[in-house]
Amino acid sequence: MSIVVRNVPRADQAVIDALGRFGVATVHEAFGRAGLMKSYMRPIYPGAAIAGSAVTVLAHPGDNWMLHVAAEQLKPGDIVVVAVSADNEDGMFGDLLATSFQARGARGLIIDAGCRDVSVLRKMGFPVWPKAVSAKGTVKATLGSVNVPVVCAGALVNPGDVIVADDDGVVVIPRAKAADVAAAAAAREANEEEKRQRLASGELGLDMYKMREALEKAGLRYVDYDGK
Amino acid sequence: MSIVVRNVPRADQAVIDALGRFGVATVHEAFGRAGLMKSYMRPIYPGAAIAGSAVTVLAHPGDNWMLHVAAEQLKPGDIVVVAVSADNEDGMFGDLLATSFQARGARGLIIDAGCRDVSVLRKMGFPVWPKAVSAKGTVKATLGSVNVPVVCAGALVNPGDVIVADDDGVVVIPRAKAADVAAAAAAREANEEEKRQRLASGELGLDMYKMREALEKAGLRYVDYDGK
Amino acid sequence: MSIVVRNVPRADQAVIDALGRFGVATVHEAFGRAGLMKSYMRPIYPGAAIAGSAVTVLAHPGDNWMLHVAAEQLKPGDIVVVAVSADNEDGMFGDLLATSFQARGARGLIIDAGCRDVSVLRKMGFPVWPKAVSAKGTVKATLGSVNVPVVCAGALVNPGDVIVADDDGVVVIPRAKAADVAAAAAAREANEEEKRQRLASGELGLDMYKMREALEKAGLRYVDYDGK
Amino acid sequence: MSIVVRNVPRADQAVIDALGRFGVATVHEAFGRAGLMKSYMRPIYPGAAIAGSAVTVLAHPGDNWMLHVAAEQLKPGDIVVVAVSADNEDGMFGDLLATSFQARGARGLIIDAGCRDVSVLRKMGFPVWPKAVSAKGTVKATLGSVNVPVVCAGALVNPGDVIVADDDGVVVIPRAKAADVAAAAAAREANEEEKRQRLASGELGLDMYKMREALEKAGLRYVDYDGK
Amino acid sequence: MSIVVRNVPRADQAVIDALGRFGVATVHEAFGRAGLMKSYMRPIYPGAAIAGSAVTVLAHPGDNWMLHVAAEQLKPGDIVVVAVSADNEDGMFGDLLATSFQARGARGLIIDAGCRDVSVLRKMGFPVWPKAVSAKGTVKATLGSVNVPVVCAGALVNPGDVIVADDDGVVVIPRAKAADVAAAAAAREANEEEKRQRLASGELGLDMYKMREALEKAGLRYVDYDGK
Amino acid sequence: MSIVVRNVPRADQAVIDALGRFGVATVHEAFGRAGLMKSYMRPIYPGAAIAGSAVTVLAHPGDNWMLHVAAEQLKPGDIVVVAVSADNEDGMFGDLLATSFQARGARGLIIDAGCRDVSVLRKMGFPVWPKAVSAKGTVKATLGSVNVPVVCAGALVNPGDVIVADDDGVVVIPRAKAADVAAAAAAREANEEEKRQRLASGELGLDMYKMREALEKAGLRYVDYDGK
Repeated sequence: MSIVVRNVPRADQAVIDALGRFGVATVHEAFGRAGLMKSYMRPIYPGAAIAGSAVTVLAHPGDNWMLHVAAEQLKPGDIVVVAVSADNEDGMFGDLLATSFQARGARGLIIDAGCRDVSVLRKMGFPVWPKAVSAKGTVKATLGSVNVPVVCAGALVNPGDVIVADDDGVVVIPRAKAADVAAAAAAREANEEEKRQRLASGELGLDMYKMREALEKAGLRYVDYDGK
Repeated sequence: MSIVVRNVPRADQAVIDALGRFGVATVHEAFGRAGLMKSYMRPIYPGAAIAGSAVTVLAHPGDNWMLHVAAEQLKPGDIVVVAVSADNEDGMFGDLLATSFQARGARGLIIDAGCRDVSVLRKMGFPVWPKAVSAKGTVKATLGSVNVPVVCAGALVNPGDVIVADDDGVVVIPRAKAADVAAAAAAREANEEEKRQRLASGELGLDMYKMREALEKAGLRYVDYDGK
Repeated sequence: MSIVVRNVPRADQAVIDALGRFGVATVHEAFGRAGLMKSYMRPIYPGAAIAGSAVTVLAHPGDNWMLHVAAEQLKPGDIVVVAVSADNEDGMFGDLLATSFQARGARGLIIDAGCRDVSVLRKMGFPVWPKAVSAKGTVKATLGSVNVPVVCAGALVNPGDVIVADDDGVVVIPRAKAADVAAAAAAREANEEEKRQRLASGELGLDMYKMREALEKAGLRYVDYDGK
Repeated sequence: MSIVVRNVPRADQAVIDALGRFGVATVHEAFGRAGLMKSYMRPIYPGAAIAGSAVTVLAHPGDNWMLHVAAEQLKPGDIVVVAVSADNEDGMFGDLLATSFQARGARGLIIDAGCRDVSVLRKMGFPVWPKAVSAKGTVKATLGSVNVPVVCAGALVNPGDVIVADDDGVVVIPRAKAADVAAAAAAREANEEEKRQRLASGELGLDMYKMREALEKAGLRYVDYDGK
Repeated sequence: MSIVVRNVPRADQAVIDALGRFGVATVHEAFGRAGLMKSYMRPIYPGAAIAGSAVTVLAHPGDNWMLHVAAEQLKPGDIVVVAVSADNEDGMFGDLLATSFQARGARGLIIDAGCRDVSVLRKMGFPVWPKAVSAKGTVKATLGSVNVPVVCAGALVNPGDVIVADDDGVVVIPRAKAADVAAAAAAREANEEEKRQRLASGELGLDMYKMREALEKAGLRYVDYDGK
Repeated sequence: MSIVVRNVPRADQAVIDALGRFGVATVHEAFGRAGLMKSYMRPIYPGAAIAGSAVTVLAHPGDNWMLHVAAEQLKPGDIVVVAVSADNEDGMFGDLLATSFQARGARGLIIDAGCRDVSVLRKMGFPVWPKAVSAKGTVKATLGSVNVPVVCAGALVNPGDVIVADDDGVVVIPRAKAADVAAAAAAREANEEEKRQRLASGELGLDMYKMREALEKAGLRYVDYDGK
């Protein structure tokens, strides 16, 4: 039952790029606080930030065969998302595969397993969000699938979903909702800029968000240190 | 039983700044090897180093309401210390709260939970020592307390305690002992400088610390590789 | 039964340096995918990369006495490898010991425990691959051994083995096999350069490695998204 | 966007019960080695073994409100499956909810969070597979959903999927595939019984599975201890 | 600064025993959901359940000297609570110390480190809630303290506090609040019995707790599976 | 380089059985507090206790081929010890292999990976000390080795070493030292019996071990609670 699904539809590129500009935290909020991968997914170098269309891979522990299969399905702007059928930290991905993926136009890799050659990847400017850095080599022996739904680091990813990844982690937005989420993120950001200026001037969130009454009603009491 | 304690006394600013100059490792030693938070508390960017007076917060998982309450209690030079009532990695703190805290004069944040917007925080120069980086959003629904004793990352922190944080982690010094610890740290550092020079010249610690006799008495034997 | 073994033979320096140039991932592959330490061993700053001859230390939790004993056994080009008799993250190593080790010619430290003073070590250019960063101080009370076989981060290390460490982790090569592994690594790297250029030009690994037939035989099926 | 989906179709009860008799390991194999939850999901007492139809819950950290909502959707033979929007170990479930679930005919609970009152649950015979045992109480403040697709302990669960849980863990079988998997499991088990008897009589798997030729071809060499 | 504090006041024995009968989950709720140790503290055998007065110990990694010192301070009904100055799983406690503690009237041990001889302890009926089971032996070399405030598994424990431990974990109640908490727990339990009977009869929590209106107001929507 | 070593010498059976009677904690102490595997190795049912001669296996993640190869090398009284070349929790071992191993006379299994069919294994009386319980199935695709030195759960194991495993964990004793360690364990146990009786009668370890002077010299101070 190992399949490769070809010609998966992508979201609109302008929407994808907009989501990338907003970044993970804003997009996650705009999507109703959903779609986030687990916090152990960290970029291999600080400052990495990408958005793209998911080409998904289901692989097995210690076996990176399907990553070679996935390379053929890549279009410029894609991000490869690798899920593994059991917890594993082997270094499934290194500089050779990165060279291939980059040549095919991929923007980066999200992998719920290990990654190696990280200093070379940094120099190449090919960002990876792995579970671990590990030089452990892998075999090419067991089939998996490409472009099927996968669970990666706790998040469901369908092929063609939009992936946004930066220093804050990785978030997944279903293709059909990408435009709506981008619009919500834009509204949110506009709103935040004004708040940022008021807070920078010293105004308290207590006042700006009008929290005092709710806090009092909930029973918050103020006491003085000496008066205890 | 949710309270906010106002006007907590701070340690002498000169003492706080001196402790900051000595750094976490020296201060921890000078305090008799106590007061250290668990090693999972890491700075969001290398080189961050601060010292300040603790404004403590007890919050609940997935709820950052009390951080807004804490902002009002901040004085220049303070460090906010957030404990959570159960293990949680949600991103309770981001760039808006950082803008507010920075405007109030806070030097940084210690949080036994998650932090987000880390690339913005790096640009702002607002250092955070969190348990995890996570974009996961939070609600504002449940009261906690501000400036009560809390256990943060395994260490007891009272409001007004001195916090020192750098690349080596986070240490807590009770306010009443801050001056003594600073004096002990100064003595220790003076003593270390001479040792450093002797070791740099090739002298062995075995001789400098006069360890050879104790090692022999404890039963240490030397053998040659060939002679085995 | 605490011993210090003197005059352990080292591998040929040219071989050691060659292994260092290939790096951890290539050396690990050239050694038949063996010898790798666990992935939790991470450099204290990015870009650190060393190779050297192992001086091994067996220490006890919270006790760094034997590191002082090890200093005397160091020759230029050595790397100290510290195993601990039980899981422990205490900061057994800091800038004073680093000054001593560096003065004796050591190239770095691999330690299955904690390390502190990491910002000073970065400035000194003395790289460490620890299990954790921790300021926790240690005592000097219990004997261990120097230059005996140890298990460090899951890998068996004999004194005189060659250690290679970089951003990808740490690998151990037995002294007797170092020259063969270096030769195999050289062959592998020559081979990889040509592959890299073909992949960079857009050729697929599927074709370059002639995988298509094997994949079909294993049962891989291609389907179109619309045709599902 | 918080919804409760009513009248979710269940799989055939005879199929569900058959899957339960085969147990997790056999069903997981019969389903092509897929559908397994992470190994941290453990029964609160040994020997617990159930199968049923999934009523799914998406809840938030520290909030068990939706479990009360789920109770109304339970039919005899159901199993409640709780996913949480962020890692959390709070004790969302205890003896009162268990009393309610049991009265409604539920066979057990799978929860990617904490469970409490475990000694009472043992006496009641209401099995739970939680991530952790924790007495930590929760609030009822934030909406989630019932009977929507969720990711629980790394596995995708749709409402109405068949859940099998025992001492080996928890496996999920999509409703539409339940009958086929049950048939495959029956075939597998018949096949295993004969193997078991041959192995029990001392026959080697090497011979029974005819592995010797493949091992030799792959390069396995036999040597004698003395002959090394 | 190593001290042993003698003659620490205990809470009223009747109050302690009452808290023990209510158990950890109820006591934790009655204390406002505070005082709980981390969920990694598990009993070495199921069904263990004790309450008693805390004799606290601050020890160092791999060193159980202070447990012998603590034995002298034990009175019948006490529970020893051991905190360690750094994360450690060594087996600090075994059957000899258990024999001594039991002879002195202790009811059990809470230890944020390892325990060994667990099958003997089970036979002796001396329950322990450790962080890990480990046979790793320890030394007696470094002083700690007895009956000082400690942080054990994330909870602050003062000597003389009441400890309640069972299959759900460990909770700490300050001595001064023990009687109030016992009263609150009694009220809570009386209240729960009636609820349990209503739920057992099939009444829904939605109705019993009158949640339907609040859920609707919060925006919960009901839809039919077919109607999607 | 995959080999199977035949006819590995075993230790004297009487010595092995004696070590088994002393149990893990005593044997570990008698061996100078060495040889212990990591504490995550736990028996699949309480009360399991075995000793035997190690038949070692080096396997790869998700691949149990070499366990079938190992079966042929088993002699009555042996214990199979499985190390994996990278961290992995897949269920490499279940009831069929257990039937085969038991028929060949094996006493149990130590595996630094997963185990399944645990309720059947319990009924069969075939004890396993795994890293995890997992139903995850494995393939038979990659060669490893049998009866070579391996690192299992942090401990070096040579074929023919004596393994002792019980509720306290797993310890490894080199074959050549087995008789000496058994003698030391016997001496230790005789010594402990007398101590146990003195402690049971209420005598303090402080007096029995004559610790008071050493404690005073180290600086321990006694104070009264009221006198603080």
